[in-house]
Amino acid sequence: MVAMARAMLGVCVYLCFCRVRTSHVPLKMNRTIQNLLQLYKIPPKERFNGRPVFSREILGTKMEAKAMLMSAVLQTYEELLGRMLKRLPGPTVPTPVDHSADCDPGSNMAARAHLYYLLKRVQDLRKRRYQSQDKLLDWLHKIRDLQMDNLVVQSKALWELPWLYEEASSLGESIPPLHRRRRQTTRRRRRQPQNHV
Amino acid sequence: MVAMARAMLGVCVYLCFCRVRTSHVPLKMNRTIQNLLQLYKIPPKERFNGRPVFSREILGTKMEAKAMLMSAVLQTYEELLGRMLKRLPGPTVPTPVDHSADCDPGSNMAARAHLYYLLKRVQDLRKRRYQSQDKLLDWLHKIRDLQMDNLVVQSKALWELPWLYEEASSLGESIPPLHRRRRQTTRRRRRQPQNHV
Repeated sequence: MVAMARAMLGVCVYLCFCRVRTSHVPLKMNRTIQNLLQLYKIPPKERFNGRPVFSREILGTKMEAKAMLMSAVLQTYEELLGRMLKRLPGPTVPTPVDHSADCDPGSNMAARAHLYYLLKRVQDLRKRRYQSQDKLLDWLHKIRDLQMDNLVVQSKALWELPWLYEEASSLGESIPPLHRRRRQTTRRRRRQPQNHV
Repeated sequence: MVAMARAMLGVCVYLCFCRVRTSHVPLKMNRTIQNLLQLYKIPPKERFNGRPVFSREILGTKMEAKAMLMSAVLQTYEELLGRMLKRLPGPTVPTPVDHSADCDPGSNMAARAHLYYLLKRVQDLRKRRYQSQDKLLDWLHKIRDLQMDNLVVQSKALWELPWLYEEASSLGESIPPLHRRRRQTTRRRRRQPQNHV
């Protein structure tokens, strides 16, 4: 009972704070979410169990998107080189990498050593520099597999919508609208020759 | 024949350039890739068909990772609200959004109107500000579904490895190694109280 009262107080304080602090989440939106939360009701101990649907920690990242994409590229190379190794006939025991250049370049043994060498380099780079990016990529893949028909997930997500909408709107203001960006890109293209034809 | 000669010349110029310009792709790595390209041989017209495995355009992004993640969050909300609408009993024709607040808040009709209203707001925000991010997300999902056992894909990917490894290494230098970051985070945590308990 105390937990429920505390949770309800939290709701009120949060929603009042939202109204005062921001202009991105309109009053009607907040009211709509409150109404829906009456319908998609779950016990406070389930809603406030410390496992939100969308993690604030992840969404607070200051990382460049390029680093994330590069991490995905390295992951893909690991998978790809692994598959290429599996499809080579012959022993599956790793060939010592240092002697790879000495083998007949056309032989399977040499190919195996070459592939192991490349795999090792890619793995090392990813392990050394791209572990945080992997975390973000995992998160991206996980939210694609969200249990969208689950009532708890739906209710939690509704509850989290105001702050996410607020964040997405604020961030969106720093991104120029698409039609302006397109004009800028066209101008830039007209001025500069294309690098990759 | 002319196309093949031109392609081979391109290979040589590219590899020489790589050797001179960078220190991230070691000579042995370049030689290993050349050796493997002899094995994973595909006709130049297939390799240079203008459809690389990893797009330079996408990987040249200057976007923040947060914008990509936010775009994924909005996509998820669209899907989620759509599912919630489908699971509501009653008519599937959209209820006019403007009257949503006037209905009995407990009724299905009101719930439908509320959900449509939220869906519309999320869709509008995504359409207005997050279209470029969607492109990057699509690309990320697509490279997960790459035909990794396809010889052309393998050969093209080998061919593209030097510049990607170079890019990933250069970019990785601007990312501090994980153990240093962890120490910094721990220090920061000790100094500041946690916001989200």
